[in-house]
Amino acid sequence: EVAAAVERLLASSGPLAGKHVIVTSGPTHEPIDPVRYIANRSSGKQGHAIAKAAVEAGARVTLISGPVTLPDPAGVTIVHVESAREMLQAVEKALPADIGIFAAAVADWRVANAGEQKIKKKDGALPNLSLTENPDILATISHRTESRPPLMVGFAAETEHVIEHAKQKLAKKGCDLIVANDVSTAGGVMGGDSNTVHLVTASDVETWPTLSKTDVAKKLIGHLSAMAEGAKS
Amino acid sequence: EVAAAVERLLASSGPLAGKHVIVTSGPTHEPIDPVRYIANRSSGKQGHAIAKAAVEAGARVTLISGPVTLPDPAGVTIVHVESAREMLQAVEKALPADIGIFAAAVADWRVANAGEQKIKKKDGALPNLSLTENPDILATISHRTESRPPLMVGFAAETEHVIEHAKQKLAKKGCDLIVANDVSTAGGVMGGDSNTVHLVTASDVETWPTLSKTDVAKKLIGHLSAMAEGAKS
Repeated sequence: EVAAAVERLLASSGPLAGKHVIVTSGPTHEPIDPVRYIANRSSGKQGHAIAKAAVEAGARVTLISGPVTLPDPAGVTIVHVESAREMLQAVEKALPADIGIFAAAVADWRVANAGEQKIKKKDGALPNLSLTENPDILATISHRTESRPPLMVGFAAETEHVIEHAKQKLAKKGCDLIVANDVSTAGGVMGGDSNTVHLVTASDVETWPTLSKTDVAKKLIGHLSAMAEGAKS
Repeated sequence: EVAAAVERLLASSGPLAGKHVIVTSGPTHEPIDPVRYIANRSSGKQGHAIAKAAVEAGARVTLISGPVTLPDPAGVTIVHVESAREMLQAVEKALPADIGIFAAAVADWRVANAGEQKIKKKDGALPNLSLTENPDILATISHRTESRPPLMVGFAAETEHVIEHAKQKLAKKGCDLIVANDVSTAGGVMGGDSNTVHLVTASDVETWPTLSKTDVAKKLIGHLSAMAEGAKS
């Protein structure tokens, strides 16, 4: 608590002083029945590190996190959620903000016919998991006409054609920047402590060397502070 | 390590001294693609507590655990696995044993067409998750003709008709005892620290009061020690 107080004190003069930053982090869990769910390998390490770096840069930070085993970072307002729909609600409730950094690995689909009772194993019969599309949090917030954060950042975890997919995602979602990375097994990014990212904007691709997730977070917050500053002038 | 050594020393005279006990614990994760998977809410707390109680009772313990956030208990041989198929292989490799206690929440199904690349979200199209049945670890081991552990214990996590389902499971799986519990939301068992269990055998149903998972583990190991002793005489 002392550390957090010191951070806030130091922070009042940081590059993001007076700004509200919303960060999403971690996976979402989409229920199949009361005991089973669909998950993904996001650890929340990158998103949590970004929230921490934003606090250190002086921002007021709302961190909206899916189920992770990480401690809540000091100095943030934390909202714990499970599903994509809960995460969208929490983001909308946290608006307005100056910057939205949507690092969570949100499930694209949920089970439409999620059972209220545990699905029983019947001889030979397989349950029918009918999927339905989840709300697209990045696109929904980026396309808002009211209280859209002026700087919207999305993440793209890809296993192939990383930059190409990121460019498509940027255009489709309507955000200002995509942080893209390769999460194929060889990369070991998901759950790991380092990250190799590409910053993709409408006009530019910037590739950073492999860094710790903490360093990616600091460098990204520095980059976004400069972008926010640039947009103002 | 000192604690573990002391446990082993004390244990050499326990009721399970000289016995090999295989315990499975935790959930399994079944891949959908490199980043997504199907999981369940098992925390591994009950299975890990049983492994610990068996060590304290003098047994040599092999703990085969799905992905959990718990520390490895002292004094056990631990095998970490992800999927049901990996868990079955690990159990078979750990045989022979005197007692098998299969507390893991093994996924009944896996995705038959798991993708080697991340499944992309295409406009309007939903991926087809074709499910296939996983090996039934409890039934497979209970029905072995060679090196079947003389005492086989299964678990039944139910959300309704708990005892009725447990009796059916006992008969179908061919095990000697089912530890059944109610994991409906009201119970809060999955992930929680206490448990209300029913011990179901071919001839008897015994219902225990709500106990901590540690106490359920100790009481169960005491019960199994007596059963193993009874079978011998």
